[in-house]
Amino acid sequence: MNPAEPLRDETGPAQSAPAPVFILVAPQLGENIGACARVMGNFAIPELRLVAPRDGWPNPAAQTMAAGSPVLDAARVFDTFEGATADCQVLFATTARPRGMVKPVLTGREAMVRARTHIDSGERVGGLCGAEKSGLPNEAVTRANAILTLPVDPAFASLNLAMACGVVAHEWRAGESAPAPFEMLEDRASAAEMEGLYGHLQDELDRAGFFYPPEKTPLMMQNLINIFARGGLSQQEVRTLRGVIKALTIGRGKARVVRDD
Amino acid sequence: MNPAEPLRDETGPAQSAPAPVFILVAPQLGENIGACARVMGNFAIPELRLVAPRDGWPNPAAQTMAAGSPVLDAARVFDTFEGATADCQVLFATTARPRGMVKPVLTGREAMVRARTHIDSGERVGGLCGAEKSGLPNEAVTRANAILTLPVDPAFASLNLAMACGVVAHEWRAGESAPAPFEMLEDRASAAEMEGLYGHLQDELDRAGFFYPPEKTPLMMQNLINIFARGGLSQQEVRTLRGVIKALTIGRGKARVVRDD
Repeated sequence: MNPAEPLRDETGPAQSAPAPVFILVAPQLGENIGACARVMGNFAIPELRLVAPRDGWPNPAAQTMAAGSPVLDAARVFDTFEGATADCQVLFATTARPRGMVKPVLTGREAMVRARTHIDSGERVGGLCGAEKSGLPNEAVTRANAILTLPVDPAFASLNLAMACGVVAHEWRAGESAPAPFEMLEDRASAAEMEGLYGHLQDELDRAGFFYPPEKTPLMMQNLINIFARGGLSQQEVRTLRGVIKALTIGRGKARVVRDD
Repeated sequence: MNPAEPLRDETGPAQSAPAPVFILVAPQLGENIGACARVMGNFAIPELRLVAPRDGWPNPAAQTMAAGSPVLDAARVFDTFEGATADCQVLFATTARPRGMVKPVLTGREAMVRARTHIDSGERVGGLCGAEKSGLPNEAVTRANAILTLPVDPAFASLNLAMACGVVAHEWRAGESAPAPFEMLEDRASAAEMEGLYGHLQDELDRAGFFYPPEKTPLMMQNLINIFARGGLSQQEVRTLRGVIKALTIGRGKARVVRDD
């Protein structure tokens, strides 16, 4: 199933969600709903559910902030928390507030890694986020399998609703695969081509009297070689650098080098 | 030092930053700047720098969206990219766009893990974020050690500026217990020292007639700068390379350059 397809059947069972379902419980500002829909679109999380949005639905402020995200038009609205969560096997409650109840507390990263395991086995996972001012009601938190807590500074813990969704959305996507390997150089220069560069540089520096006293040549060259070797160079870059050396020494015909012996 | 203390001394050297410095390059909307300041406060990242904000500074829209974050009042404004980055040894460019240049590409997670290693060794790390519409200019991306790219859906990649900052801010905080990954450069050159090298090289190449036709200068310099920026250089290596440039052009008195006019 194309995860970006909007859900058409509002009354029947929802299709299985290959990503967590984001559920905003009594959200207040349309702008936040829209911004949430936007960042869900950015991280390819298709399904947004709204429980009793304060200002009703649809909401023009949400439309604007969604910046064209396909997630907004596909958003489903429910009257009750029970209705919105009925088909979810797993619920995570996003809250920074300790609730005075015993509940596993997970980081965003841990929660999304677990979510992936649940989803891979066919379960539906709901990520719950509460109203801007009051957060999630206790009834919602109680029904969650775990609390998802973000590492906010207790001195300034008031995280914007859409920002919290965005952080969790990113954690979902970031956990998808092993970190991308170091970007490969295209057409990396061979060792022989690198040696050509080093030799060219050393010859010209030698001619210029750079190595003084001469015994320091190996160590000085070692340090210069290391600069280029550690990052690596593409074939084109080797050609460019050799052109630089040539230009600096010869000046493309604009200057003649006259030796004082 | 309390990371939440505002910087008081605008003219003297900045105090060491125990977190990355977030640098917004030509940000457009005050709302985004404020939202960025807010989420930085949430994740205890104290230092925000603004380069030539489109609507000037201060900005009432920023004040509102910052929701009381201490980061906003402490934000520093710079006229130029060079000024804002001069004291940073390491720069990450946040962009989703490939730039047609060879540069390491890191996830947000990887970048912040590396940032922590740099910061623990006393280096200052700048995280660059570009204008809402155009992103970061090429000159900024070239000067970065690596590109930080977020795993957005290519079909809907337009991530809000503050949201991008928030995701990276959270990655910083979330990675607090991750292990340090890689070999550190000793006494890494600051961005200002790197600029000195680039300028020296460009001047000498220009004098040598290397840039032909002249319109190709920016692109050719961009590629040369990238070679040195991506691996990074120590202060000693910058000195050595400047000595190399000088030796190749002047020949340590062993040769006189005679111009053919």
